[in-house]
Amino acid sequence: MDAIKDGWFSELSTLWPGVCLSLEVEKILHSEKSEFQDIKVLQTKSHGKALILDGIIQCTENDEFSYQEMISFLPLCSHPNPKQVLIVGGGDGGVAREVVKHPAVEHVTQVEIDARVMQVSKQYLPNMGVGLSHPKVSVFVGDGFKFMKEHKNQFDVIITDSSDPIGPAESLFQQSYFELMREALKPGGIVCSQAGTVWCGLETVVNTFNFCKNVFESCSYGYSAVPTYPTGQIGYVLGRKIERTNFKEPVRIFSEMELEKMGLRYYSPEIHRAAFVLPRFAQKALYGTEQKVNGMNHD
Amino acid sequence: MDAIKDGWFSELSTLWPGVCLSLEVEKILHSEKSEFQDIKVLQTKSHGKALILDGIIQCTENDEFSYQEMISFLPLCSHPNPKQVLIVGGGDGGVAREVVKHPAVEHVTQVEIDARVMQVSKQYLPNMGVGLSHPKVSVFVGDGFKFMKEHKNQFDVIITDSSDPIGPAESLFQQSYFELMREALKPGGIVCSQAGTVWCGLETVVNTFNFCKNVFESCSYGYSAVPTYPTGQIGYVLGRKIERTNFKEPVRIFSEMELEKMGLRYYSPEIHRAAFVLPRFAQKALYGTEQKVNGMNHD
Repeated sequence: MDAIKDGWFSELSTLWPGVCLSLEVEKILHSEKSEFQDIKVLQTKSHGKALILDGIIQCTENDEFSYQEMISFLPLCSHPNPKQVLIVGGGDGGVAREVVKHPAVEHVTQVEIDARVMQVSKQYLPNMGVGLSHPKVSVFVGDGFKFMKEHKNQFDVIITDSSDPIGPAESLFQQSYFELMREALKPGGIVCSQAGTVWCGLETVVNTFNFCKNVFESCSYGYSAVPTYPTGQIGYVLGRKIERTNFKEPVRIFSEMELEKMGLRYYSPEIHRAAFVLPRFAQKALYGTEQKVNGMNHD
Repeated sequence: MDAIKDGWFSELSTLWPGVCLSLEVEKILHSEKSEFQDIKVLQTKSHGKALILDGIIQCTENDEFSYQEMISFLPLCSHPNPKQVLIVGGGDGGVAREVVKHPAVEHVTQVEIDARVMQVSKQYLPNMGVGLSHPKVSVFVGDGFKFMKEHKNQFDVIITDSSDPIGPAESLFQQSYFELMREALKPGGIVCSQAGTVWCGLETVVNTFNFCKNVFESCSYGYSAVPTYPTGQIGYVLGRKIERTNFKEPVRIFSEMELEKMGLRYYSPEIHRAAFVLPRFAQKALYGTEQKVNGMNHD
């Protein structure tokens, strides 16, 4: 199966051998090789436009809201006052678009390594790209590692919106990365990173979770449905510096009217709580059995 | 894209145009055309054996537990004493396997229209097929409609484990089917039917939900993750006769020790509650906004 053949794009990866999602393509809107990766924008028949990096679906217009809302509002609503937010990656702009909706957020710093992803998104995916041009957002092109080394003790929330742990984003799934984020956070600060799914590569999820747990006083794993991601869902690992916290219970609870005003289509306080409830096999793999007896996640 | 080509099985359906999941096939273990449908069993590279009916994945050994446990334990744990259970469809035997685990269940009646599905499952998928041979289970080959007309006021729980609303199972998604189930239930009895996903064909889900709501005093929609189903999840519509009930709160709460003893890998009381928490767009489509204000599903 080639990547695009007979009018279908097929997503093949060594991360999920033997399984493949395909989307019917109406038109290839853009294709280039940037300094860092292959970038494609496809007009699909079923899911609007799709952004593809190195052959992997990053987001489609139809279901991106689940990922962007959840990776943003899970950490933001777990923090009492998230004024300063750092986004590492997130070149399409969708996370920035969501983060600026939170009324406490004063400023968003975004560090994306590939300027071309941002330019392509602004041109072809303006509903996401718009986040990059928001007045509260400052965009830096560069390496997130380097940026954080130079900006210690500055952020309330750090969101890592990366591609999968293969290729340019591999280092963002290591313990040294979590240590660096800890340094860049203020006391009580919270991190949230894309962390794969328990249905495919559970071992990788457990590793990422343990790296986070080794570095932060509190750590939890949540997930949401994203049909065009492998296995149909994506996970998030959250950590908090110094303060111990139960991520399952949001500290900022938005009313129905506030959610409506922010145009949220996936996130709600109820979904926040449910996102941390894992199937038994995953609960046991991440938390063991003893904590499950109390019906509580690690807190 | 043909169904099996170059060593990959591809699932194409008019129910989800423009999207296709493919599984790499090591061996075609079985292929036949029964009186009712095309039946295939594939040895896949990633998901163990897969049962395919009319070109659609019914279950794979790797992730079937989520579906079988949830379609069984959501209704069983919503009923105070589910002694008599009817399964319509479920030819692979996986639902029967789960239902008999519940300590209150005294007898299971299963009505499957295609005897060949059951024989094939016993032969190739013994981990599921075993349910059909359990001493508490009586299997009838025939039409579920006809069977229920002849067995009124007999069951505490009716589970409809059907294929999708196209082909032989189409009638199982109509209001007349829910009316028939109501007649076959005892007072306070509960139904649970496969009901599609909110990410693809939301309108069909809303229709099925409304049929159920028109017929039963209580109605709710839950879901669980099943990576090899379209969009990576599957929904369940539940209804209760006469009694009003909040399906979100199980009445039978199993301890960790009981769950372990039953070998449950997905279901837990926490997962039961979370299964009914919908993303905002789906919550609004099924329940409207007014009930959401109270943070409650229709009850």
